[in-house]
Amino acid sequence: MKNVVLASTSTLYGESYLSYLLPVIKELFSGVDEVIFIPYARPGGISMDDYTARVSEAFAAAGIKVKGLHTFEAPVKAIMEGKAFFTGGGNTFLLVKELHDLQLMDVLREEVERGKPYLGTSAGSNIGGINMQTTNDMPIVYPSSFKTMGLVPFNLNPHYLDPIPELPHMGETRETRIREFLVQQDIPVVGLREGSWIRVKGDAVTLEGSVPARIFRRGKEAYEVAAGQPLTF
Amino acid sequence: MKNVVLASTSTLYGESYLSYLLPVIKELFSGVDEVIFIPYARPGGISMDDYTARVSEAFAAAGIKVKGLHTFEAPVKAIMEGKAFFTGGGNTFLLVKELHDLQLMDVLREEVERGKPYLGTSAGSNIGGINMQTTNDMPIVYPSSFKTMGLVPFNLNPHYLDPIPELPHMGETRETRIREFLVQQDIPVVGLREGSWIRVKGDAVTLEGSVPARIFRRGKEAYEVAAGQPLTF
Repeated sequence: MKNVVLASTSTLYGESYLSYLLPVIKELFSGVDEVIFIPYARPGGISMDDYTARVSEAFAAAGIKVKGLHTFEAPVKAIMEGKAFFTGGGNTFLLVKELHDLQLMDVLREEVERGKPYLGTSAGSNIGGINMQTTNDMPIVYPSSFKTMGLVPFNLNPHYLDPIPELPHMGETRETRIREFLVQQDIPVVGLREGSWIRVKGDAVTLEGSVPARIFRRGKEAYEVAAGQPLTF
Repeated sequence: MKNVVLASTSTLYGESYLSYLLPVIKELFSGVDEVIFIPYARPGGISMDDYTARVSEAFAAAGIKVKGLHTFEAPVKAIMEGKAFFTGGGNTFLLVKELHDLQLMDVLREEVERGKPYLGTSAGSNIGGINMQTTNDMPIVYPSSFKTMGLVPFNLNPHYLDPIPELPHMGETRETRIREFLVQQDIPVVGLREGSWIRVKGDAVTLEGSVPARIFRRGKEAYEVAAGQPLTF
Protein backbone atom coordinates (compact mmCIF):
# COMPACT_ATOMS: atom_id res chain seq x y z
CA MET A 1 0.00 0.00 0.00
CA LYS A 2 1.48 3.32 -1.05
CA ASN A 3 2.32 5.51 1.94
CA VAL A 4 3.40 8.91 0.72
CA VAL A 5 3.46 12.57 1.77
CA LEU A 6 4.26 15.29 -0.79
CA ALA A 7 4.56 18.68 0.91
CA SER A 8 4.66 22.10 -0.73
CA THR A 9 7.52 23.33 1.41
CA SER A 10 9.89 22.13 4.14
CA THR A 11 9.58 25.29 6.16
CA LEU A 12 6.83 27.74 7.04
CA TYR A 13 7.61 31.44 7.29
CA GLY A 14 9.20 32.23 10.64
CA GLU A 15 9.44 28.58 11.69
CA SER A 16 12.36 26.18 11.85
CA TYR A 17 13.18 23.54 9.24
CA LEU A 18 10.49 20.81 9.01
CA SER A 19 8.93 21.82 12.36
CA TYR A 20 5.34 22.11 11.06
CA LEU A 21 5.71 18.63 9.47
CA LEU A 22 6.93 16.90 12.63
CA PRO A 23 3.55 15.26 13.47
CA VAL A 24 3.26 14.15 9.83
CA ILE A 25 6.79 12.71 9.90
CA LYS A 26 6.04 10.80 13.11
CA GLU A 27 2.88 9.27 11.63
CA LEU A 28 4.33 8.51 8.17
CA PHE A 29 7.51 6.93 9.52
CA SER A 30 5.97 5.25 12.59
CA GLY A 31 7.86 2.03 13.30
CA VAL A 32 10.81 3.14 11.16
CA ASP A 33 14.09 3.91 12.93
CA GLU A 34 16.16 4.97 9.91
CA VAL A 35 15.31 7.00 6.82
CA ILE A 36 17.42 7.37 3.70
CA PHE A 37 17.73 11.05 2.78
CA ILE A 38 18.10 12.03 -0.87
CA PRO A 39 20.09 15.30 -0.83
CA TYR A 40 20.73 15.87 -4.56
CA ALA A 41 18.58 19.03 -4.91
CA ARG A 42 21.10 21.02 -2.80
CA PRO A 43 19.13 24.23 -1.95
CA GLY A 44 21.31 27.30 -2.33
CA GLY A 45 24.13 25.02 -3.49
CA ILE A 46 24.63 23.58 0.03
CA SER A 47 26.89 20.49 0.18
CA MET A 48 25.18 17.11 0.47
CA ASP A 49 26.92 16.46 3.80
CA ASP A 50 25.72 19.74 5.28
CA TYR A 51 22.22 19.16 3.92
CA THR A 52 22.08 15.70 5.47
CA ALA A 53 23.28 17.07 8.82
CA ARG A 54 20.46 19.63 8.78
CA VAL A 55 17.90 16.89 8.10
CA SER A 56 19.38 14.59 10.77
CA GLU A 57 18.94 17.33 13.34
CA ALA A 58 15.29 17.86 12.40
CA PHE A 59 14.50 14.12 12.33
CA ALA A 60 16.17 13.59 15.73
CA ALA A 61 13.11 15.29 17.24
CA ALA A 62 11.07 12.35 15.93
CA GLY A 63 13.64 9.81 17.14
CA ILE A 64 14.56 8.82 13.58
CA LYS A 65 18.11 8.34 12.26
CA VAL A 66 19.00 9.72 8.81
CA LYS A 67 21.55 8.44 6.30
CA GLY A 68 22.45 10.44 3.18
CA LEU A 69 22.05 8.46 -0.05
CA HIS A 70 25.27 10.06 -1.35
CA THR A 71 27.26 8.24 1.34
CA PHE A 72 26.46 4.77 -0.05
CA GLU A 73 28.84 3.21 -2.55
CA ALA A 74 25.91 1.50 -4.31
CA PRO A 75 22.92 3.86 -4.15
CA VAL A 76 20.62 1.53 -6.15
CA LYS A 77 21.20 -1.21 -3.59
CA ALA A 78 20.73 1.32 -0.76
CA ILE A 79 17.29 2.22 -2.13
CA MET A 80 16.35 -1.44 -2.51
CA GLU A 81 17.42 -2.22 1.05
CA GLY A 82 16.22 1.07 2.62
CA LYS A 83 13.17 1.16 4.87
CA ALA A 84 11.89 4.65 4.09
CA PHE A 85 12.85 7.77 2.12
CA PHE A 86 12.88 11.54 2.35
CA THR A 87 13.77 13.76 -0.60
CA GLY A 88 14.40 17.38 0.34
CA GLY A 89 13.88 20.55 -1.68
CA GLY A 90 16.28 22.62 -3.71
CA ASN A 91 16.73 22.59 -7.47
CA THR A 92 14.48 20.07 -9.23
CA PHE A 93 16.67 19.92 -12.35
CA LEU A 94 19.69 18.94 -10.27
CA LEU A 95 17.67 16.34 -8.36
CA VAL A 96 16.12 14.77 -11.47
CA LYS A 97 19.44 14.74 -13.35
CA GLU A 98 21.16 12.88 -10.52
CA LEU A 99 18.31 10.39 -10.09
CA HIS A 100 18.36 9.56 -13.82
CA ASP A 101 22.16 9.56 -14.14
CA LEU A 102 22.45 7.14 -11.22
CA GLN A 103 19.53 4.96 -12.45
CA LEU A 104 17.62 5.66 -9.25
CA MET A 105 14.29 7.06 -10.44
CA ASP A 106 12.68 3.73 -11.34
CA VAL A 107 14.00 1.78 -8.37
CA LEU A 108 12.82 4.49 -5.98
CA ARG A 109 9.36 4.44 -7.57
CA GLU A 110 9.21 0.65 -7.31
CA GLU A 111 10.17 0.59 -3.63
CA VAL A 112 7.66 3.33 -2.80
CA GLU A 113 4.90 1.58 -4.75
CA ARG A 114 5.73 -1.52 -2.73
CA GLY A 115 4.73 0.42 0.41
CA LYS A 116 7.92 1.91 1.83
CA PRO A 117 7.09 5.35 3.31
CA TYR A 118 8.14 8.35 1.21
CA LEU A 119 8.26 12.02 2.16
CA GLY A 120 8.99 14.78 -0.32
CA THR A 121 9.20 18.52 0.20
CA SER A 122 9.26 21.01 -2.67
CA ALA A 123 11.60 19.51 -5.34
CA GLY A 124 11.21 16.17 -3.53
CA SER A 125 7.45 16.49 -4.04
CA ASN A 126 7.79 17.49 -7.69
CA ILE A 127 9.30 14.08 -8.42
CA GLY A 128 6.15 12.42 -7.06
CA GLY A 129 4.24 13.83 -10.04
CA ILE A 130 4.12 12.47 -13.59
CA ASN A 131 6.90 14.76 -14.74
CA MET A 132 8.89 17.72 -13.39
CA GLN A 133 7.59 20.11 -16.01
CA THR A 134 5.61 22.32 -13.60
CA THR A 135 8.57 23.08 -11.34
CA ASN A 136 9.42 26.71 -10.49
CA ASP A 137 13.14 26.06 -10.57
CA MET A 138 15.83 27.27 -12.92
CA PRO A 139 17.25 24.79 -15.45
CA ILE A 140 20.77 25.03 -14.03
CA VAL A 141 21.67 21.55 -15.34
CA TYR A 142 20.31 19.45 -18.23
CA PRO A 143 18.65 16.21 -17.09
CA SER A 144 18.49 13.26 -19.49
CA SER A 145 14.70 13.22 -19.05
CA PHE A 146 11.99 15.27 -17.32
CA LYS A 147 10.05 12.12 -16.36
CA THR A 148 9.55 11.55 -12.64
CA MET A 149 7.97 8.85 -10.45
CA GLY A 150 4.25 9.36 -11.06
CA LEU A 151 3.26 8.36 -7.52
CA VAL A 152 0.14 10.48 -8.12
CA PRO A 153 -1.73 10.75 -11.45
CA PHE A 154 -1.03 14.46 -11.87
CA ASN A 155 1.72 17.09 -11.66
CA LEU A 156 2.52 19.37 -8.73
CA ASN A 157 3.42 23.01 -8.49
CA PRO A 158 4.93 23.41 -5.00
CA HIS A 159 5.12 26.82 -3.31
CA TYR A 160 2.04 27.77 -5.34
CA LEU A 161 1.69 31.54 -5.18
CA ASP A 162 -1.43 33.54 -6.03
CA PRO A 163 -0.91 36.62 -8.19
CA ILE A 164 0.10 39.67 -6.14
CA PRO A 165 -2.31 42.36 -7.40
CA GLU A 166 -0.34 45.43 -6.34
CA LEU A 167 2.93 44.26 -7.92
CA PRO A 168 3.79 46.33 -11.04
CA HIS A 169 5.69 43.41 -12.56
CA MET A 170 5.07 42.03 -16.04
CA GLY A 171 6.72 38.61 -15.69
CA GLU A 172 4.24 35.77 -16.06
CA THR A 173 2.19 34.82 -12.99
CA ARG A 174 2.31 31.23 -11.77
CA GLU A 175 -1.16 30.64 -13.22
CA THR A 176 -0.03 31.88 -16.67
CA ARG A 177 2.96 29.53 -16.58
CA ILE A 178 0.78 26.55 -15.66
CA ARG A 179 -1.69 27.50 -18.44
CA GLU A 180 1.24 27.46 -20.91
CA PHE A 181 2.08 23.95 -19.66
CA LEU A 182 -1.52 22.81 -20.23
CA VAL A 183 -1.37 23.95 -23.85
CA GLN A 184 1.50 21.50 -24.33
CA GLN A 185 0.46 18.61 -22.06
CA ASP A 186 -2.94 17.36 -20.90
CA ILE A 187 -1.92 16.57 -17.30
CA PRO A 188 -3.80 18.04 -14.30
CA VAL A 189 -1.68 20.32 -12.11
CA VAL A 190 -2.14 20.78 -8.36
CA GLY A 191 -1.00 24.22 -7.21
CA LEU A 192 0.13 23.30 -3.70
CA ARG A 193 0.29 26.31 -1.38
CA GLU A 194 2.79 26.45 1.48
CA GLY A 195 1.22 24.85 4.55
CA SER A 196 -0.43 22.00 2.64
CA TRP A 197 0.62 18.53 1.56
CA ILE A 198 -0.72 15.60 -0.41
CA ARG A 199 -1.33 12.36 1.50
CA VAL A 200 -1.34 9.09 -0.45
CA LYS A 201 -2.52 5.92 1.30
CA GLY A 202 -2.92 3.14 -1.21
CA ASP A 203 -5.24 4.51 -3.88
CA ALA A 204 -6.60 7.34 -1.72
CA VAL A 205 -5.09 10.74 -2.45
CA THR A 206 -6.16 13.66 -0.24
CA LEU A 207 -5.12 17.23 0.41
CA GLU A 208 -4.01 17.92 3.99
CA GLY A 209 -2.84 20.96 5.90
CA SER A 210 -4.11 24.46 6.55
CA VAL A 211 -4.85 25.89 3.09
CA PRO A 212 -6.77 24.88 -0.04
CA ALA A 213 -5.01 23.83 -3.27
CA ARG A 214 -5.67 25.31 -6.69
CA ILE A 215 -6.38 22.85 -9.49
CA PHE A 216 -5.57 23.49 -13.14
CA ARG A 217 -6.93 21.34 -15.95
CA ARG A 218 -6.88 21.77 -19.70
CA GLY A 219 -10.01 23.49 -20.97
CA LYS A 220 -11.40 24.21 -17.48
CA GLU A 221 -11.44 27.19 -15.14
CA ALA A 222 -9.01 26.79 -12.23
CA TYR A 223 -10.76 25.79 -9.00
CA GLU A 224 -10.02 25.26 -5.32
CA VAL A 225 -9.96 22.02 -3.32
CA ALA A 226 -10.22 22.33 0.47
CA ALA A 227 -7.92 20.55 2.92
CA GLY A 228 -9.30 17.13 3.85
CA GLN A 229 -10.81 16.62 0.40
CA PRO A 230 -9.77 13.97 -2.13
CA LEU A 231 -7.59 14.93 -5.11
CA THR A 232 -9.24 12.94 -7.88
CA PHE A 233 -9.66 14.11 -11.44
CA MET B 1 29.11 44.86 -36.79
CA LYS B 2 26.71 43.32 -34.31
CA ASN B 3 23.59 45.43 -33.84
CA VAL B 4 21.49 43.96 -31.08
CA VAL B 5 18.95 44.95 -28.42
CA LEU B 6 18.03 42.49 -25.66
CA ALA B 7 15.19 43.88 -23.53
CA SER B 8 13.98 42.60 -20.17
CA THR B 9 10.31 42.86 -21.12
CA SER B 10 8.10 43.78 -24.06
CA THR B 11 5.67 45.76 -21.96
CA LEU B 12 5.87 48.09 -19.00
CA TYR B 13 3.19 48.01 -16.33
CA GLY B 14 0.12 49.98 -17.48
CA GLU B 15 1.51 50.57 -20.99
CA SER B 16 0.70 49.00 -24.35
CA TYR B 17 2.75 46.26 -26.03
CA LEU B 18 6.24 47.45 -27.04
CA SER B 19 5.33 51.13 -26.64
CA TYR B 20 8.27 52.03 -24.38
CA LEU B 21 10.63 50.37 -26.90
CA LEU B 22 9.32 52.26 -29.93
CA PRO B 23 12.24 54.76 -30.08
CA VAL B 24 14.68 51.84 -29.68
CA ILE B 25 12.94 49.90 -32.45
CA LYS B 26 13.09 52.91 -34.79
CA GLU B 27 16.82 53.35 -34.19
CA LEU B 28 17.75 49.65 -34.29
CA PHE B 29 15.77 48.95 -37.46
CA SER B 30 16.43 52.28 -39.21
CA GLY B 31 16.55 51.71 -42.97
CA VAL B 32 14.79 48.35 -42.61
CA ASP B 33 11.27 48.06 -44.01
CA GLU B 34 10.55 44.45 -43.04
CA VAL B 35 11.41 42.40 -39.96
CA ILE B 36 11.09 38.65 -39.54
CA PHE B 37 9.24 37.86 -36.32
CA ILE B 38 10.07 34.65 -34.44
CA PRO B 39 6.84 33.72 -32.62
CA TYR B 40 7.72 30.29 -31.18
CA ALA B 41 7.66 31.30 -27.49
CA ARG B 42 3.84 31.75 -27.63
CA PRO B 43 3.11 33.67 -24.40
CA GLY B 44 0.03 32.30 -22.65
CA GLY B 45 -0.20 29.68 -25.41
CA ILE B 46 -1.32 32.28 -28.02
CA SER B 47 -1.30 31.03 -31.64
CA MET B 48 1.66 32.07 -33.78
CA ASP B 49 -0.68 33.86 -36.20
CA ASP B 50 -2.29 35.88 -33.42
CA TYR B 51 1.10 36.68 -31.90
CA THR B 52 2.42 37.89 -35.26
CA ALA B 53 -0.67 40.06 -35.75
CA ARG B 54 -0.06 41.71 -32.36
CA VAL B 55 3.56 42.44 -33.29
CA SER B 56 2.58 43.76 -36.74
CA GLU B 57 0.26 46.25 -35.13
CA ALA B 58 2.96 47.50 -32.75
CA PHE B 59 5.62 47.74 -35.49
CA ALA B 60 3.22 49.62 -37.79
CA ALA B 61 3.77 52.64 -35.51
CA ALA B 62 7.43 52.56 -36.65
CA GLY B 63 6.48 52.04 -40.30
CA ILE B 64 7.93 48.51 -40.36
CA LYS B 65 6.26 45.45 -41.87
CA VAL B 66 6.41 42.14 -39.99
CA LYS B 67 6.41 38.59 -41.34
CA GLY B 68 6.06 35.57 -39.04
CA LEU B 69 8.86 33.01 -39.43
CA HIS B 70 6.27 30.22 -39.09
CA THR B 71 4.69 31.29 -42.39
CA PHE B 72 7.79 30.43 -44.44
CA GLU B 73 8.07 26.96 -45.96
CA ALA B 74 11.85 27.06 -45.53
CA PRO B 75 12.61 28.93 -42.29
CA VAL B 76 16.39 28.45 -42.56
CA LYS B 77 16.33 30.16 -45.96
CA ALA B 78 14.04 32.85 -44.56
CA ILE B 79 16.59 33.66 -41.85
CA MET B 80 19.42 33.71 -44.38
CA GLU B 81 17.52 36.06 -46.67
CA GLY B 82 15.88 38.15 -43.92
CA LYS B 83 16.98 41.72 -43.24
CA ALA B 84 16.33 41.93 -39.50
CA PHE B 85 14.80 39.87 -36.68
CA PHE B 86 12.60 40.21 -33.64
CA THR B 87 12.05 37.34 -31.19
CA GLY B 88 9.18 37.92 -28.77
CA GLY B 89 8.70 36.66 -25.22
CA GLY B 90 6.76 33.74 -23.88
CA ASN B 91 8.15 30.36 -22.85
CA THR B 92 11.90 30.03 -23.39
CA PHE B 93 11.82 26.20 -23.42
CA LEU B 94 9.29 26.24 -26.26
CA LEU B 95 11.31 28.83 -28.18
CA VAL B 96 14.64 27.03 -27.77
CA LYS B 97 13.14 23.64 -28.63
CA GLU B 98 11.69 24.97 -31.88
CA LEU B 99 14.89 26.79 -32.84
CA HIS B 100 16.95 23.63 -32.32
CA ASP B 101 14.41 21.26 -33.89
CA LEU B 102 14.24 23.44 -37.01
CA GLN B 103 18.06 23.92 -37.11
CA LEU B 104 17.61 27.68 -36.76
CA MET B 105 19.72 28.58 -33.72
CA ASP B 106 23.09 28.58 -35.50
CA VAL B 107 21.93 30.24 -38.68
CA LEU B 108 20.20 33.01 -36.71
CA ARG B 109 23.37 33.58 -34.70
CA GLU B 110 25.46 33.73 -37.88
CA GLU B 111 23.19 36.25 -39.56
CA VAL B 112 23.09 38.46 -36.45
CA GLU B 113 26.87 38.27 -36.05
CA ARG B 114 27.10 39.38 -39.67
CA GLY B 115 25.35 42.61 -38.64
CA LYS B 116 21.65 42.11 -39.28
CA PRO B 117 19.68 43.93 -36.54
CA TYR B 118 18.22 41.72 -33.82
CA LEU B 119 15.69 42.61 -31.13
CA GLY B 120 14.74 40.24 -28.33
CA THR B 121 12.31 40.72 -25.48
CA SER B 122 12.18 38.39 -22.46
CA ALA B 123 12.52 34.82 -23.87
CA GLY B 124 13.83 36.42 -27.08
CA SER B 125 16.54 38.07 -24.98
CA ASN B 126 17.38 34.89 -23.08
CA ILE B 127 18.50 33.31 -26.35
CA GLY B 128 21.03 36.11 -26.80
CA GLY B 129 22.93 34.72 -23.79
CA ILE B 130 25.33 31.78 -23.70
CA ASN B 131 22.60 29.38 -22.61
CA MET B 132 18.98 29.54 -21.49
CA GLN B 133 19.74 28.18 -18.05
CA THR B 134 18.86 31.36 -16.16
CA THR B 135 15.36 31.65 -17.56
CA ASN B 136 12.39 32.04 -15.19
CA ASP B 137 10.13 29.88 -17.36
CA MET B 138 8.60 26.48 -16.73
CA PRO B 139 10.09 23.50 -18.58
CA ILE B 140 6.83 22.76 -20.42
CA VAL B 141 8.68 21.03 -23.29
CA TYR B 142 12.08 19.28 -23.48
CA PRO B 143 14.55 21.02 -25.83
CA SER B 144 17.33 18.98 -27.42
CA SER B 145 19.84 21.44 -25.92
CA PHE B 146 19.86 24.46 -23.59
CA LYS B 147 22.56 26.20 -25.68
CA THR B 148 21.58 29.56 -27.17
CA MET B 149 23.22 32.14 -29.44
CA GLY B 150 25.83 33.70 -27.18
CA LEU B 151 25.53 37.16 -28.75
CA VAL B 152 26.84 38.46 -25.41
CA PRO B 153 29.48 36.73 -23.24
CA PHE B 154 27.11 36.13 -20.30
CA ASN B 155 23.63 34.91 -19.41
CA LEU B 156 20.51 36.99 -18.84
CA ASN B 157 17.78 36.85 -16.27
CA PRO B 158 14.96 38.94 -17.77
CA HIS B 159 12.18 40.41 -15.56
CA TYR B 160 14.74 40.42 -12.76
CA LEU B 161 12.84 40.91 -9.50
CA ASP B 162 14.32 41.99 -6.18
CA PRO B 163 13.22 40.02 -3.11
CA ILE B 164 9.92 41.31 -1.70
CA PRO B 165 10.70 41.68 2.02
CA GLU B 166 7.12 41.60 3.35
CA LEU B 167 6.15 38.43 1.46
CA PRO B 168 5.77 35.46 3.86
CA HIS B 169 6.73 33.02 1.09
CA MET B 170 9.46 30.43 1.36
CA GLY B 171 9.99 29.67 -2.34
CA GLU B 172 13.48 30.62 -3.50
CA THR B 173 14.13 34.26 -4.39
CA ARG B 174 15.46 35.06 -7.85
CA GLU B 175 18.90 35.74 -6.34
CA THR B 176 18.94 32.30 -4.65
CA ARG B 177 18.07 30.63 -7.95
CA ILE B 178 20.86 32.47 -9.78
CA ARG B 179 23.30 31.56 -6.99
CA GLU B 180 22.34 27.90 -7.47
CA PHE B 181 23.14 28.32 -11.18
CA LEU B 182 26.56 29.79 -10.37
CA VAL B 183 27.43 26.73 -8.27
CA GLN B 184 26.95 24.66 -11.43
CA GLN B 185 28.28 27.01 -14.12
CA ASP B 186 30.86 29.79 -14.07
CA ILE B 187 28.99 32.19 -16.36
CA PRO B 188 28.18 35.78 -15.30
CA VAL B 189 24.46 36.55 -15.08
CA VAL B 190 22.88 39.94 -15.74
CA GLY B 191 19.66 40.40 -13.75
CA LEU B 192 17.83 42.67 -16.19
CA ARG B 193 15.03 44.63 -14.51
CA GLU B 194 11.92 45.65 -16.43
CA GLY B 195 12.55 49.01 -18.10
CA SER B 196 16.12 48.20 -19.12
CA TRP B 197 17.79 46.60 -22.10
CA ILE B 198 21.21 45.56 -23.32
CA ARG B 199 22.59 47.35 -26.38
CA VAL B 200 25.24 45.62 -28.45
CA LYS B 201 27.07 47.59 -31.16
CA GLY B 202 29.98 45.59 -32.46
CA ASP B 203 32.05 44.70 -29.41
CA ALA B 204 30.51 47.39 -27.19
CA VAL B 205 27.87 46.08 -24.77
CA THR B 206 26.05 48.62 -22.59
CA LEU B 207 23.07 48.73 -20.28
CA GLU B 208 20.32 51.12 -21.39
CA GLY B 209 16.96 52.24 -20.01
CA SER B 210 15.66 53.60 -16.74
CA VAL B 211 16.93 51.17 -14.08
CA PRO B 212 20.22 49.57 -13.04
CA ALA B 213 20.99 45.88 -13.62
CA ARG B 214 22.14 43.44 -10.95
CA ILE B 215 25.25 41.41 -11.75
CA PHE B 216 25.93 37.95 -10.36
CA ARG B 217 29.32 36.26 -10.62
CA ARG B 218 30.72 33.14 -9.04
CA GLY B 219 32.52 33.88 -5.79
CA LYS B 220 31.57 37.58 -5.77
CA GLU B 221 28.92 39.67 -4.02
CA ALA B 222 26.15 40.73 -6.38
CA TYR B 223 26.50 44.35 -7.54
CA GLU B 224 24.66 46.99 -9.54
CA VAL B 225 25.50 48.50 -12.93
CA ALA B 226 23.85 51.80 -13.81
CA ALA B 227 22.11 52.51 -17.13
CA GLY B 228 24.56 53.91 -19.67
CA GLN B 229 27.43 51.85 -18.29
CA PRO B 230 29.29 49.05 -20.12
CA LEU B 231 28.52 45.42 -19.29
CA THR B 232 32.01 43.92 -19.28
CA PHE B 233 33.28 41.25 -16.94
